[in-house]
Amino acid sequence: MLDRIALPAGSQPEPVLVLGSVAFDTIETPFDKGERILGDSASYCALAASYYAPARLVGIVGRDFGEEHINRLKAREIDLEGLQIDQSGDTFFWAGRYHENFNRRDTLETQLNVFETFEPNLPEAYRNTPYVLLGNIGPNLQLHVLEQLQSPKFVVADTMNLWIDIMKDPLLELLPKVDVLILNDDESEQLTGEQNVIKSGKQLKSMGSKSVIVKKGSHGAVLFHDDGLFSIPAYPVEDLRDPTGAGDSFAGAFTAYLAATQKTDFASLKKAMLYGTVTASYTVEAFSCNSLEAVGVTGLEGRYEDLVKLISL
Amino acid sequence: MLDRIALPAGSQPEPVLVLGSVAFDTIETPFDKGERILGDSASYCALAASYYAPARLVGIVGRDFGEEHINRLKAREIDLEGLQIDQSGDTFFWAGRYHENFNRRDTLETQLNVFETFEPNLPEAYRNTPYVLLGNIGPNLQLHVLEQLQSPKFVVADTMNLWIDIMKDPLLELLPKVDVLILNDDESEQLTGEQNVIKSGKQLKSMGSKSVIVKKGSHGAVLFHDDGLFSIPAYPVEDLRDPTGAGDSFAGAFTAYLAATQKTDFASLKKAMLYGTVTASYTVEAFSCNSLEAVGVTGLEGRYEDLVKLISL
Repeated sequence: MLDRIALPAGSQPEPVLVLGSVAFDTIETPFDKGERILGDSASYCALAASYYAPARLVGIVGRDFGEEHINRLKAREIDLEGLQIDQSGDTFFWAGRYHENFNRRDTLETQLNVFETFEPNLPEAYRNTPYVLLGNIGPNLQLHVLEQLQSPKFVVADTMNLWIDIMKDPLLELLPKVDVLILNDDESEQLTGEQNVIKSGKQLKSMGSKSVIVKKGSHGAVLFHDDGLFSIPAYPVEDLRDPTGAGDSFAGAFTAYLAATQKTDFASLKKAMLYGTVTASYTVEAFSCNSLEAVGVTGLEGRYEDLVKLISL
Repeated sequence: MLDRIALPAGSQPEPVLVLGSVAFDTIETPFDKGERILGDSASYCALAASYYAPARLVGIVGRDFGEEHINRLKAREIDLEGLQIDQSGDTFFWAGRYHENFNRRDTLETQLNVFETFEPNLPEAYRNTPYVLLGNIGPNLQLHVLEQLQSPKFVVADTMNLWIDIMKDPLLELLPKVDVLILNDDESEQLTGEQNVIKSGKQLKSMGSKSVIVKKGSHGAVLFHDDGLFSIPAYPVEDLRDPTGAGDSFAGAFTAYLAATQKTDFASLKKAMLYGTVTASYTVEAFSCNSLEAVGVTGLEGRYEDLVKLISL
């Protein structure tokens, strides 16, 4: 039986729909290099989510996406009915290099391949999914998915600098339709023009999403909610190997924890942030989803307790 | 009567000795300029401390240090018996300029003046002070003060990059003699050669001080203690005017809160960090000690409650 975090007796996790890109990444860090490893938003989001609730993936891969990768996702019982396999081309490919302190990375190569013409049309069985994570992907596609859903209960959206640059209008159109917008401090500044994280987050919240989470990398994250602010540190990772996918893992675990508990009040969002944080802490300790796939619930629960202690008076 | 934070009935705060430099600073920020304003470690530390416990200042000023500045310190009932007034020269002067995002500052001018030959010899009445804050000043002078004290109960030391550069040996000699070493993340990296804050803090702790606090500016601070780690965010300041003195205010309030409560266990250090954080949050909202002198206990207690909420699950 698939291991998932323990829930109160009788509670039944609801499914979470995960939209995003699936790619092969070639990543250079100061320590190591990973060649054509499984990555991108949908992979990390769905695998992270799978420890909390059943995940339904929406994405596209090409003819080079071998059985072994399909099996990695299936091993975590991720529903792949929404994963399009396009035999006319190859899977999205990205190559990047991190600098000494991991604070900056350069893109070395991007091949969109089959992703270029991706239309995320939902299978019928996905349309009533109550919890939705619009992972990092063009806001036009995020909107397209949202339109196909029948009254979702809770929608989380992630984004990135690229979309703020080239698709700001659809992104602004998306904001009032989501419950939680997740982005990092640079993106928050880019979208609001405001450097101060607190001012910027408050301003973002006024742009339409019910709540906003601003991620600050190794410095944690801040939630801006109607009931107040909540700030948490990152999990104290000593052996950072590859930060790729940390944000996606955070978002996947965050959304799926809410789906698992079926609660979305302020207190639940806070706990979901803690689970997001500890799930991401595993992701960054290895290339690709390797550590995320290996961790197991005991590891996640252990670090959750650590994190609670780390912030408790 | 001087306002100090409320303590449980019957408890009597113990005095805290504050060693440091007193200077006139000329500071340029992206918004404003302050000319020859009261500053440096002892000023901020002592004024911050005065909201929690009686402060005894050890420092030196010159013939240009007017009555109005003496009166500012006296207004907070800071004991100035240990403040040497050297008529042979002027007060230490520093000029600096902050860059756009306050993350970096350049020193434009430094005139040591009377500070150059400062010998911090303690008045007899100071020698039995139980709580000691060795504010940012050469570690040779910090050691000299420590030698004159009769069995202090709790010693906190602050330092900076300059001393790590030019006085590393006396600094290393100091570490095993202090209960808490406070420094920022850059200094922690400089002293240990380790970029990862968690690894670096742990390594520092192994160098002799009982505990270590690594400050991360607007990202908060981490305590490394025998009983575990504790991480807090900065207070969410929206109107940052001048970060000068934030670290000193943190250290002053931190040490004096311990002196006030006469408890120095893990839980007390955590609360002291919160008081340090909120006290510093006022300092950075105005030039010099202006906001720190104006705040009052109600403001500090209000922000303490805010900060507790900000980190509470």
